Parts: sequence; C-alpha cells; structure tokens
Amino acid sequence: MSLDHTTEGFRFDRDTRVDKRADGEFTATLTDAWNTFTTHPNGGYVLGAALNALRQGLNQPDPLAVSVFFLRPAAPGEATVRTEVVREGRRTATGQALMEQGGKEIVRATATYGDLTPDPKARVLTLEEPPRLPSPEDCFVPPEFDRPEGLGIAHSVEYRYPRRPAWLEGRKDGRPHAEFWMRFADGREPDTHSLASMVDFAPPAVLEIGEFATITVELSVHVRARPAPGWLACRVFTKHVSGGMHEEDMEIWDGTGTLVAQCRQLAMLL
Amino acid sequence: MSLDHTTEGFRFDRDTRVDKRADGEFTATLTDAWNTFTTHPNGGYVLGAALNALRQGLNQPDPLAVSVFFLRPAAPGEATVRTEVVREGRRTATGQALMEQGGKEIVRATATYGDLTPDPKARVLTLEEPPRLPSPEDCFVPPEFDRPEGLGIAHSVEYRYPRRPAWLEGRKDGRPHAEFWMRFADGREPDTHSLASMVDFAPPAVLEIGEFATITVELSVHVRARPAPGWLACRVFTKHVSGGMHEEDMEIWDGTGTLVAQCRQLAMLL
Repeated sequence: MSLDHTTEGFRFDRDTRVDKRADGEFTATLTDAWNTFTTHPNGGYVLGAALNALRQGLNQPDPLAVSVFFLRPAAPGEATVRTEVVREGRRTATGQALMEQGGKEIVRATATYGDLTPDPKARVLTLEEPPRLPSPEDCFVPPEFDRPEGLGIAHSVEYRYPRRPAWLEGRKDGRPHAEFWMRFADGREPDTHSLASMVDFAPPAVLEIGEFATITVELSVHVRARPAPGWLACRVFTKHVSGGMHEEDMEIWDGTGTLVAQCRQLAMLL
Repeated sequence: MSLDHTTEGFRFDRDTRVDKRADGEFTATLTDAWNTFTTHPNGGYVLGAALNALRQGLNQPDPLAVSVFFLRPAAPGEATVRTEVVREGRRTATGQALMEQGGKEIVRATATYGDLTPDPKARVLTLEEPPRLPSPEDCFVPPEFDRPEGLGIAHSVEYRYPRRPAWLEGRKDGRPHAEFWMRFADGREPDTHSLASMVDFAPPAVLEIGEFATITVELSVHVRARPAPGWLACRVFTKHVSGGMHEEDMEIWDGTGTLVAQCRQLAMLL
C-alpha cells in the first residue's frame, strides 16, 4: 500500500517516513519537531513511524486497535523498524512492529487493521456527548506554544483552548480534565493513520494536579471512524491516581460530532 | 517465580497451569469449564494461561498493563505458549506470550509487570464512585447460571445482580450498562494475576441492546491495586456502537471501594 498522495508533502508524513531495507525491515529518522516537555519525541509520533512501516505489509487500510508499549525513551535520529504480519483474515489483519535505536528496542506496537469505509446500514449508538467547545476562532491559543524556542510539537500541532489552562500560569485547577481543539499546523488533514498518533498529542491531564513528570508504560487506541477534514475536538482526562500510576483517557471527535478515536494509557509518575 | 501456594488447589489455577518444556516454551491444557455462550473458552481465561507462563520469566510480581489480541477462537485442549522477555528495568519488566493451537497462533499478549505493594506515601486521587450495589446476599443469582448443562464459566464464577438482567428474559432494556458482584465459585480469592482474566468474565453489556454475537479483537487491562479478599464490585458498559464495532469497558472494585482493575476491549459485531 502506498502513502496517500494527499499527505505526502506534510511534516507528519515526512517525519514518519520509512525506507524499506529488506522484507520486514525499515529505516526511519526521528526528528525533534515532535519533542515534548521531556525533550524526547512524543510517543504518538514515534508510533506513527512504526505504523507507517507496519501498514505497508497489511491488506487492510485502517488501524482499528493499536497497543504500544514504550520500553525506552526515543531520541531524534535514526531508528530501525522490524515488522511482522501476524495474521491476515477476511475482515482484519494483525501485525507487530518493533522499533530499535542503538540496538535496543524502544517501542513494541501490535495492531489490528480493518476497513472503516462508512457503512450507512451499520448500527450507531452514541451514549456520550462530544466536547462542548466554542468555535476554534473564539478559543485561546497558548502563547507559550508559539515561542520559537518552544516545544517542537507545539510548532507541528495547533491547539485551541476555551480558556487559559491553569498549569500554563504555574497554577493547578485540581481537575485533571481538559477539552480543546487540535489539528496539524501545516494543514494536513486527519485520517485514521494519523489519529493513532494524535491520541497522544494532548498535554497530560495531570498537569492540572501538579504532576509534570509522567511517562507512559502502555497506550491502547481504538480508531472508530474515518474523520471529517478540519479541527478535531478532544477530551483528555484522568480519573484515578494511585500507587505512583495513573491512567489517561483521550477521545477525539471530528467536526461532525462523530467519535473517531478513543485511547487509554497507563503512565507512571516519576 | 513459583505459584502462590494459597491458590494451588483452585480451578482457575489448575485450569491455567502450564508445564515448561524448554526455555520460553510451555504446554497448557485449556478446559471447557470457562466456556461462554460462544462455546469457546472465555478470552480472559485463555489469557490467564498465557500470563501464567509469561510471569515465570519476569522479575516483577504484578501485571500493570496487559494488551491481548485475539486472533482465532480457542478450543478446549492442548496449547503451546511461547514467551519472550522483552525488557527488564528497575521498576518494570515487559514480556510477550503467544499461544498456539494446532500450529496456529490464537492469542498474542504483551504485558508490563511491576510491584503493586501498597505504598502509604503514594498520592491517591479517585474521581469516580464504585458501583452502588446492595450486599451480595441481597442480590439476584441468575438461575440460568445454575443449570448443570449451562455455561461452563457460570459454574466457575459466581455472579450477583441487583435485579434480573432483561436479556435473561429475552428482553433488552436498551442501556448497555451493568453493575454486579463477582467472585470465583470455589472460594479462590482474587489477586492481581487473576484480575487480568476476570476483567473479561462479564456478560457483554451489549446484550441489553440485543447484540448477542460479538467477538473481541483486542483487550487492554490496567491492574491498579492488589485486591482485598472477597466479592468484587464490577461495572461493565458500552458507550459507542458504530461501523460494526463497539468498545466495552469493565471496572473492578474490591470490597474496600478501591478500583483494582480497568479494562477496555474493542469488539466486532458478527
């Protein structure tokens, strides 16, 4: 399967590009354009490169379920991706991708792909509301995200908040729950492939309870529909902190009010 | 790591027992005592055997995050489990287990283990209520679950509902949400190892919207604490059905009101 031509010129696709070296072996070059607070590349971005290799060998177009274990921090620079087709069935195809840097495995992702072509006959039941947000034009752009020397990811992704997050002012509002708009800064439209990465692009909800040092152990994402073009409405929240761990849920809804991706990660407080 | 001696005589532990054949290779014998409606062994039970092999090679006691992809239906009978230690660090250990039957891979599970020894200094934040249930003695025992010829799993696991589920009467109440008590029928107490299986023991929430044929693609469980002995309070729910798929969330709380496990699966309607 070749890359979708409409996405070829965009940063996300350039920065997750993989070159095939042999069957099931690819080279990627991670950039610093997706670095977070931690000064490491965002995990969702790293996953994007791994899935870019994996999907080339699978006979289904859309990631349905992806689980990724983060084993060591990624660094900008060259990486090797090793892929395996685990099973191809009639409705789904499952594979696994390992990413290595410096000879060490840093990421292990398993994924089942399928076909999310809209089916007007399929049953739809939605027992939850999309985030209720003012239009993106009426929302707040965190100026910290515009600093030239700022976070890499804040130049690659645009965020719009209904009000200024307390953690940006050195306060904490005590509620680990945020809703905001998100899109790629260069106009790349979302698709099911990029959603599997974008579920990890939110500033952590636990910033609002004063927890700044958290690393993800595992992230599972379910992609539920092909997104409409335009801004994505996001909801990120944590309900349970205990034993030095917390979960973080992320939902992404498209502009038509359709849930397009659900994600949960387990993270460790440092 | 040897099996906990207090669990050795119980059915769950007998039926998930594995015998080591070589480094990273084990034999299991799946029984029909955990069969569901589908007449296949419950996926959580199958996962239990895979984790029983995997945990023997890891230097941490408690599963923190487990993701399992169900590739083909399991059948009662012999199975091979192949395990791999992916990474052992200071706080966590990650491994992978593949289960095969008839030379075909049926289950691929990846897991990060850690140590959930209670830490009284750790921060605790709980922004959700446990299920509000009458005491188990005042709850309903589905008589269908007591038929001698009934579902295998209904003999191995005890369920107590606050009221009779509509789906048991051939009706549907339209709300895919249930709360109930659960425990092993033979008195085996829950622990973090068994929780990773028990999160899959709930009758599907979508039974209440008339969906009886659903198969799990992927299941992720986060074990959050070591459970107190006794009945477990469970909450199972689905919020989104679309494109022939639905997610199912399961929470397990122990009798002290502590969330001990969270699970989400992605399932496909047949």
